Amino acid sequence: MTDRFTPTREDKFSFGLWTVGWQGRDPFGEATRPVLDPVESVQRLSELGAYGVTFHDDDLIPFGASEGERARLVKRFRAALDATGMQVPMATTNLFTHPVFKDGGFTANDRDVRRFALRKTIRNIDLAAELGAHTYVAWGGREGAESGAAKDVRLALDRMKEAFDLLAEYVTEQGYDLRFAIEPKPNEPRGDILLPTIGHALAFIERLERPALFGVNPETGHEQMAGLNFPHGIAQALWAGKLFHIDLNGQTGIKYDQDLRFGAGDLRAAFWLVDLLESADGYRGPRHFDFKPPRTEGFDGVWASAAGCMRNYLILKERAAAFRADPDVQESLTAARLDQLARPTAEDGLTGLLDDPTAYDTFDPDTAAARSMAFEHLDQLAMDHLLGVRG
Amino acid sequence: MTDRFTPTREDKFSFGLWTVGWQGRDPFGEATRPVLDPVESVQRLSELGAYGVTFHDDDLIPFGASEGERARLVKRFRAALDATGMQVPMATTNLFTHPVFKDGGFTANDRDVRRFALRKTIRNIDLAAELGAHTYVAWGGREGAESGAAKDVRLALDRMKEAFDLLAEYVTEQGYDLRFAIEPKPNEPRGDILLPTIGHALAFIERLERPALFGVNPETGHEQMAGLNFPHGIAQALWAGKLFHIDLNGQTGIKYDQDLRFGAGDLRAAFWLVDLLESADGYRGPRHFDFKPPRTEGFDGVWASAAGCMRNYLILKERAAAFRADPDVQESLTAARLDQLARPTAEDGLTGLLDDPTAYDTFDPDTAAARSMAFEHLDQLAMDHLLGVRG
Amino acid sequence: MTDRFTPTREDKFSFGLWTVGWQGRDPFGEATRPVLDPVESVQRLSELGAYGVTFHDDDLIPFGASEGERARLVKRFRAALDATGMQVPMATTNLFTHPVFKDGGFTANDRDVRRFALRKTIRNIDLAAELGAHTYVAWGGREGAESGAAKDVRLALDRMKEAFDLLAEYVTEQGYDLRFAIEPKPNEPRGDILLPTIGHALAFIERLERPALFGVNPETGHEQMAGLNFPHGIAQALWAGKLFHIDLNGQTGIKYDQDLRFGAGDLRAAFWLVDLLESADGYRGPRHFDFKPPRTEGFDGVWASAAGCMRNYLILKERAAAFRADPDVQESLTAARLDQLARPTAEDGLTGLLDDPTAYDTFDPDTAAARSMAFEHLDQLAMDHLLGVRG
Amino acid sequence: MTDRFTPTREDKFSFGLWTVGWQGRDPFGEATRPVLDPVESVQRLSELGAYGVTFHDDDLIPFGASEGERARLVKRFRAALDATGMQVPMATTNLFTHPVFKDGGFTANDRDVRRFALRKTIRNIDLAAELGAHTYVAWGGREGAESGAAKDVRLALDRMKEAFDLLAEYVTEQGYDLRFAIEPKPNEPRGDILLPTIGHALAFIERLERPALFGVNPETGHEQMAGLNFPHGIAQALWAGKLFHIDLNGQTGIKYDQDLRFGAGDLRAAFWLVDLLESADGYRGPRHFDFKPPRTEGFDGVWASAAGCMRNYLILKERAAAFRADPDVQESLTAARLDQLARPTAEDGLTGLLDDPTAYDTFDPDTAAARSMAFEHLDQLAMDHLLGVRG
Repeated sequence: MTDRFTPTREDKFSFGLWTVGWQGRDPFGEATRPVLDPVESVQRLSELGAYGVTFHDDDLIPFGASEGERARLVKRFRAALDATGMQVPMATTNLFTHPVFKDGGFTANDRDVRRFALRKTIRNIDLAAELGAHTYVAWGGREGAESGAAKDVRLALDRMKEAFDLLAEYVTEQGYDLRFAIEPKPNEPRGDILLPTIGHALAFIERLERPALFGVNPETGHEQMAGLNFPHGIAQALWAGKLFHIDLNGQTGIKYDQDLRFGAGDLRAAFWLVDLLESADGYRGPRHFDFKPPRTEGFDGVWASAAGCMRNYLILKERAAAFRADPDVQESLTAARLDQLARPTAEDGLTGLLDDPTAYDTFDPDTAAARSMAFEHLDQLAMDHLLGVRG
Repeated sequence: MTDRFTPTREDKFSFGLWTVGWQGRDPFGEATRPVLDPVESVQRLSELGAYGVTFHDDDLIPFGASEGERARLVKRFRAALDATGMQVPMATTNLFTHPVFKDGGFTANDRDVRRFALRKTIRNIDLAAELGAHTYVAWGGREGAESGAAKDVRLALDRMKEAFDLLAEYVTEQGYDLRFAIEPKPNEPRGDILLPTIGHALAFIERLERPALFGVNPETGHEQMAGLNFPHGIAQALWAGKLFHIDLNGQTGIKYDQDLRFGAGDLRAAFWLVDLLESADGYRGPRHFDFKPPRTEGFDGVWASAAGCMRNYLILKERAAAFRADPDVQESLTAARLDQLARPTAEDGLTGLLDDPTAYDTFDPDTAAARSMAFEHLDQLAMDHLLGVRG
Repeated sequence: MTDRFTPTREDKFSFGLWTVGWQGRDPFGEATRPVLDPVESVQRLSELGAYGVTFHDDDLIPFGASEGERARLVKRFRAALDATGMQVPMATTNLFTHPVFKDGGFTANDRDVRRFALRKTIRNIDLAAELGAHTYVAWGGREGAESGAAKDVRLALDRMKEAFDLLAEYVTEQGYDLRFAIEPKPNEPRGDILLPTIGHALAFIERLERPALFGVNPETGHEQMAGLNFPHGIAQALWAGKLFHIDLNGQTGIKYDQDLRFGAGDLRAAFWLVDLLESADGYRGPRHFDFKPPRTEGFDGVWASAAGCMRNYLILKERAAAFRADPDVQESLTAARLDQLARPTAEDGLTGLLDDPTAYDTFDPDTAAARSMAFEHLDQLAMDHLLGVRG
Repeated sequence: MTDRFTPTREDKFSFGLWTVGWQGRDPFGEATRPVLDPVESVQRLSELGAYGVTFHDDDLIPFGASEGERARLVKRFRAALDATGMQVPMATTNLFTHPVFKDGGFTANDRDVRRFALRKTIRNIDLAAELGAHTYVAWGGREGAESGAAKDVRLALDRMKEAFDLLAEYVTEQGYDLRFAIEPKPNEPRGDILLPTIGHALAFIERLERPALFGVNPETGHEQMAGLNFPHGIAQALWAGKLFHIDLNGQTGIKYDQDLRFGAGDLRAAFWLVDLLESADGYRGPRHFDFKPPRTEGFDGVWASAAGCMRNYLILKERAAAFRADPDVQESLTAARLDQLARPTAEDGLTGLLDDPTAYDTFDPDTAAARSMAFEHLDQLAMDHLLGVRG
């Protein structure tokens, strides 16, 4: 079916190889789907309208592969990219699947594991740069602990900082046009993961030696696993000038990491997210889907869910645009005094504020309190637009 | 009962007037306890062993009180402080009870409400300084929203920054020895609150004009309402040099804000928190309890729960000290390679790391993976110490 | 605005007096709206298209009112009902606001409080019957505890059973055409509440003396506060023949009880709920809204949100009907083998199953496992219908 | 170390083969430990003081093993049991690992999968009976869905009922002394699982043909994944006469299923659980641990954590006994009127209640409300006993 929600390259949709390639292994069950050739993923995603693919090193080149095998696999992959015109806007490192990372990568208690993790990362940074990626994602999924004495968190943050400072030094020395995007997650697979939310990652970045090279790569479900409002988190990342990449998917509340297709899960949050991303001038990067087609699905379902991610984004984009363009919405925003929020509180400075008797002495809180904020009408207009029942 | 867990002034325990003074009004019920005179609170808390009390402006001086009434109340309060030797290490502003703050204080859509909120805060900063407080807490409990269009989060953060920059300017101009501690909370009473976690607050501070004047005031239950590990959050705040104050209480998981007495709720997290606070050299401030005696209780229960907060802290302090002093624990920490975590990953710098063949080329991940981390034995030792069954 | 989503009496929408009448008092703030006259509520709700109102005793007659006052208030209320044609399909008891219920009603440790709670309930049952209600809801919001020894749960369940058995005896003896609907909630205002979910209430009912008189009154947000799938819970209640009433509202995940208007919160769950309610022949009762207009709102927002509850229900009803009528959906349901789920597993009985070699001996699990369930395509069709982009 | 917390057979501790035998495969990582021979598990658990082991069919006999292999494995296992004196009090079926169960077992949409699941279960019931088990556990981990139309829950419950009715018929016909224990879980590995809590399972049982043969097997972490109070749930199961088995472990709040060792996680809940289990006369079955030694651990950690489960139980048992025996606690329980909770509310029946003017007419709610419940003092006594600082 082709309709106005059929994606094009300009929509900048990208997918990880590990998403459509997920075989369906979960904590209680074995793989339900065979291995998917990365070349096939590139071709199919291209046909579906995506503009890019992303990868962990081990998605493309099995852990422990020989140099020859590596060269062969990269060549095949590059050929598929060239044939389709697909880009590689981002790459990342797998520091979690092999048992050697059972206590983490950059913050593993074992120093030799940390050194190995750094070298493994650097090796894939080279490939990322070679393939033209401009963003390098770092998800520290195993940087954490299940028990209190197992990890000295302040020391672990020292090690994490050391690792990122070294990587930034490397990228700078190599002259790569590559920035890092740290991906937060509160828990799973560790009981508690370091840098659990967008906020913690943003704060951490400020203590690095080259903070300008670092931003965040927030994932819908990861923030929602902490019960946080995803659009609010993205807004703070944008406000800080630090939204370098984004992982879109779906999650139905605080539970295990579900990685549903985008739109599934909290649909209203997805609407506000698209509204924000499309109206913000702070982010022009890929709309990247990091989801897992449920293991109930065959490959028909894999491609249906990949297509669904993009379709849902485009539907929501249309609806958000209509919402913002609606004169009734404009009026309702004014009724809710969003215009006043845009105005500084004290253009007159501290002195002006202190000298203004209307600010305190003659201000009547009861009268002010009696004004309705008129948010419910505004929110129902949003609902009407989301559901497509206006006009 | 007096025993080794009876607090003294040196323990630096403090309580908010609003804690023991909470009348038990909740979303579904009316007050179960009468008003408690702040002077009585000072006296009773002093007798119980606390060293300080803290307050919101409206705890001490009812909203809208006349200047004369205000002077009288402050004088009485000061007399009680003098009589008991109790200190006021911290104060804060009530920007949430009066209906005028229904859409927030510093980020209310209404500009006049924002100006009133700032003036109300400044007025209480003067009192805080006068009473000798060195920390001024800012909990933005109503800075948030229930629906997506009601708040433009980036604009709201602009207004929040403006407010804190103005307050820091004021404090600097007045020459007050006062720093601000921002208190995060994910939700309640708003559907989502801005700066929802320690991380978000730490990140926000870095964008202020005078970041050195700002730190955080994390609360046990607030972080746990987002399912986050409280000691981990405190560790990151300490790592950032930003733990300016702390609110201790109890919470039984992700639900409404319970404000149980310290120790109730997640007891293991409380143990690790005390272990961290007592061993960290980054925090020498008050151990402040921000809890609510359950509304089932009469004043007997109010004082029992206040005493319980301090008693539980001291029991956990003894147990944490015994844990750290135990030679078996030391050995177990080494078995878990905590000593290696303290060592830099690359004392030899980037070049050394890149030139070291043992870091990657000859590193055998399978052999490394086979090493047990030995965390379970260590954690059981901690459990034994917590429960007092060692030695 | 009148359109095809404007409600009529036939839609059977009802509202509690306490919903539109909520004054906005929350744990951190005072009332933001004045008292709303129940008579005005009846009139306005009638104008908006509702068919009924419901009430707690104290919503209509203030706690402690004299007999004369009571009679006067009931008469006025009845006149408003007569004038508008509005019905009272349900009533309930307030066993939570007055401090006397601080430890519960039917399971309070104090025996005299339990007796008072029963008498207060019986008194309002008389009024409910008099006003023509057929359902009497029992929400045991304070039947619970914050600490482990404060409540012996097995004894408390004995007392709960005793209470319901007595009430059923009373209703039977009086010959009232009234059934009870127990409303579960996991927590808030107590740390843990007895009968925390639909399941616990259904199970409890089976131990009562007159189980036929008892069913459940599930509330959207209450189940979602435990992270449970609300449509699944309703389906089990229907399956058990026990859905006697329903409380519709919105909730954005596991946190404090939000009571948002219906549709706000988890919109996809709301869609599946309406799909279930409208297709099930097990429930023909009211579509009752138990929500709280946010305290940011004036009365304009109160009525906007009440209207929004009904509007959203009707939009979702239209969408669910279109989903079920779509031939592509029918085909997709078959592809997902929903038809096979409707078929008994063993029409041939135990012997037939045991004797069938194809059931085990010759069954090839790998071949069976290779069949796609085709759920993602089906779910995207549902999304398309929900968002109104089909046809 | 041998001390008073060293377990003996009389403590009736049992472990699943799949617990100590867990290889550490998680959603993001490969196995970190080799296969553990069931015979070695029997020997080591026996040495540690356990009295029994339990198993899924596939734990003992790999899926698809030949009849000969099966016989050989059972014989070896039985020999190990005989040699050690270890018992098999419970067995269960693996209906989740093989991809054929990707949409469930008893409620899979595919009828042939359902028939296979039943036959697979029956086959292991025979083995369970042969090995002397008296409890057969049924965890329906994959009986659920990720999307709304994929499962008609009422039909699925029909199929679930059909399955259990057939199994009960089989057990009855065979004359096995075996009862079923249904194990609830809210989610993971499915987005939502049917019978998500103890309550839902208890309610479901009442609709079966042979309800007397069915009870529940609650698991600590499963209830806590829904934020529910585990001791409260166990109390309701005991109250209903339906606690047939129990799975003890640890969980740190609402997140993925952690399966920590018993005691880790919510220690206060563990205390109240042991207090309940040891004082209740309704349960005399095994204290069964269903936990996963963290994948950071080698086999040293596996056995340390298994030993820790039992040790923690015994420590808590000692502490709970001391709490109940303490005269101050007895006094405090009376002060909290637990004795009144044990007394019927209306020994005088409905008539007596209705005729008693003190129950309503002359009852003074304000006076009654003024009585302190004195719960905080009681709870602090419990804390003191838990931490071992009394006496």
